[in-house]
Amino acid sequence: MDWTQKVVELRRRIRKERPLIHHITNWVVTNVTANATLATGASPVMAHAVEEAADMARAARALVLNIGTLTPATVEAMLKAGRAANEAGVPVIFDPVGAGATPLRTGAAKTILQQLRIDILRGNASEIACIGGFEARIRGVDAAGGPADVAGMARKVAQQLGAVVAVTGARDYISDGERTVAVDNGHPLLTFVTGTGCMATSIIAAFRAVEGDGLVAAATALAFYGLAAEKAAASSRGPGSFQVALFDYLYNLSDEDLGAGIKILKI
Amino acid sequence: MDWTQKVVELRRRIRKERPLIHHITNWVVTNVTANATLATGASPVMAHAVEEAADMARAARALVLNIGTLTPATVEAMLKAGRAANEAGVPVIFDPVGAGATPLRTGAAKTILQQLRIDILRGNASEIACIGGFEARIRGVDAAGGPADVAGMARKVAQQLGAVVAVTGARDYISDGERTVAVDNGHPLLTFVTGTGCMATSIIAAFRAVEGDGLVAAATALAFYGLAAEKAAASSRGPGSFQVALFDYLYNLSDEDLGAGIKILKI
Amino acid sequence: MDWTQKVVELRRRIRKERPLIHHITNWVVTNVTANATLATGASPVMAHAVEEAADMARAARALVLNIGTLTPATVEAMLKAGRAANEAGVPVIFDPVGAGATPLRTGAAKTILQQLRIDILRGNASEIACIGGFEARIRGVDAAGGPADVAGMARKVAQQLGAVVAVTGARDYISDGERTVAVDNGHPLLTFVTGTGCMATSIIAAFRAVEGDGLVAAATALAFYGLAAEKAAASSRGPGSFQVALFDYLYNLSDEDLGAGIKILKI
Repeated sequence: MDWTQKVVELRRRIRKERPLIHHITNWVVTNVTANATLATGASPVMAHAVEEAADMARAARALVLNIGTLTPATVEAMLKAGRAANEAGVPVIFDPVGAGATPLRTGAAKTILQQLRIDILRGNASEIACIGGFEARIRGVDAAGGPADVAGMARKVAQQLGAVVAVTGARDYISDGERTVAVDNGHPLLTFVTGTGCMATSIIAAFRAVEGDGLVAAATALAFYGLAAEKAAASSRGPGSFQVALFDYLYNLSDEDLGAGIKILKI
Repeated sequence: MDWTQKVVELRRRIRKERPLIHHITNWVVTNVTANATLATGASPVMAHAVEEAADMARAARALVLNIGTLTPATVEAMLKAGRAANEAGVPVIFDPVGAGATPLRTGAAKTILQQLRIDILRGNASEIACIGGFEARIRGVDAAGGPADVAGMARKVAQQLGAVVAVTGARDYISDGERTVAVDNGHPLLTFVTGTGCMATSIIAAFRAVEGDGLVAAATALAFYGLAAEKAAASSRGPGSFQVALFDYLYNLSDEDLGAGIKILKI
Repeated sequence: MDWTQKVVELRRRIRKERPLIHHITNWVVTNVTANATLATGASPVMAHAVEEAADMARAARALVLNIGTLTPATVEAMLKAGRAANEAGVPVIFDPVGAGATPLRTGAAKTILQQLRIDILRGNASEIACIGGFEARIRGVDAAGGPADVAGMARKVAQQLGAVVAVTGARDYISDGERTVAVDNGHPLLTFVTGTGCMATSIIAAFRAVEGDGLVAAATALAFYGLAAEKAAASSRGPGSFQVALFDYLYNLSDEDLGAGIKILKI
């Protein structure tokens, strides 16, 4: 596949169609994920009340669920929104923030995965390992620093869940259980700004809204986002100015920038 | 009226008196509306607990209600705060975010308008149309692109509600049912940053705290805010740097800037 | 004590150890306090559900409690987290936002102080006065503008509570009831950005995570933060660019910057 051409095409479609992306997300990142969605060209809406979650999900073209500051009430809203999305054919993108950190989070992540049909799961290696039951193994992988095993984990969790799995880190791995790709765009400053993983999830949702193939949507979105981060880092002096420049580049990246910088590879 | 002189005078009063503006607002914009209020010179407070909403509203000089991420509990707090504000003579500024998008939102907006005396209603054309029962007609207006009809809608909804109505967009219209004015300040980048409508509402509240005439307060506030946006856009490279510059200009706009840029016209 | 050397040493330890700082805080500042914690070098986590608050607190190296947008449910979570922290020996840093403004806030602040062992209390003069029962006296102090009395208040409240008390303002005072120090770093632009007091509390928690002496931790943290604010103000044009630069300088302040700028004095 000509990945660069695909990124250019999907970004153009997002800007033209301005798909509505419904978020039920954590209260740390509501503002920045809305701004990342807007800068990319899509339309965010945040609505977490149980009473309207399903209505909003049905009206959207993708649904983001993020358990970063979960409570039982927000998880209930996520399940209602997710069921409505599943029925309406709206793709659900799930970000299991902190899975493994507390029993509440691990339990909520498992409930959501059992009760809903998730289209794309996006997390860091630790979160995806927890979900896939890879905990012990991953610790070893981390110690050895072996990226090949993260790719294997992505593939196996994708097979378990029947979903696309995107494991983000210095190198991102995306798998649908058969195909696996890696994305080498990104920058270490992303780890000094809160919500940068959650923003990745929102941008994946925007790309998924205009692209039916979840693996393609996730890979192109992460490359687009990572390239914006590279450009932002080059023109900033620390995490504050980096975050500002990141929104500017999500909005401004030209087709030429994309042509010169996208790094997606089949593995 | 010498509108420019009025903007200068009211901004000076806000900075001198630092009026307390109580917000019960959505969790996407709490930070940025607080910062917009501070940059303009007023003092924001956010307090949404049912147990203290009335106490805080009585202590404030204006109350902002915004249903952007409403739940039944926050609506209950809004009604308590609003009743206390009505009894104490504190003006209530209402931002019906998403009215028309779900039954929960439309219902909450109507309940608030029925149970409280709203001083100023601020929304986009679609939200105000929903509240005024103009849905069908506005679609036609949108198709024809006729701004005159938005002015007419603002006037009629103002008459229905007995409140000042501010419909914001590329051109803003403000009416109290008799007088109608338009504001031509603003910039398209406002549509690529989340919460810019909510910030407009907060700044209207700051101006209303020092100006008894709601139409004058809303028009001067929107012109002040729109001029800050124009200046910010001229010195920024995208939505990230635009938002940063917007806070800088809300804080820094000089009397000379205001003298040269305010665009309010009677229609 | 060589305060400058101490700031350099503690900042280095924070960056190396990346201590986890659990926050149960207000929804206006979740994003900016997380970013301030990250820029300083520590790891923030926000988790307010009653069901996981204790689990998260036990896993952290400091716990921040902040009642800025309290509800009875969040106060319950704070008490659970605080008890778990007390049992596990995790220091608790308390920010009584708005104590004195409403009965709900004053009552919650008192409940937290009665039921938990607080390590460091950080507030402005009005909040600390409310907690210490100094209300009337402080009004007089304010009228006279006498900073010596704020130092005395800090000392007395510290004795009452058996905790370190940090009263922040143009000059900060920190006392453990015996020793009292003042910090002269800071900048007036901090008062035009929301959450700057809350960010101070988060940074105190980061320093406390690596320093057992609460007075030393609070004084060094406030000097570090205040110096970053001075540098940020020198390179910004208003509150928007100031906030951005503040994150940059929290991340970038060099040992040389610290050597030339720290202003802590024993009084």
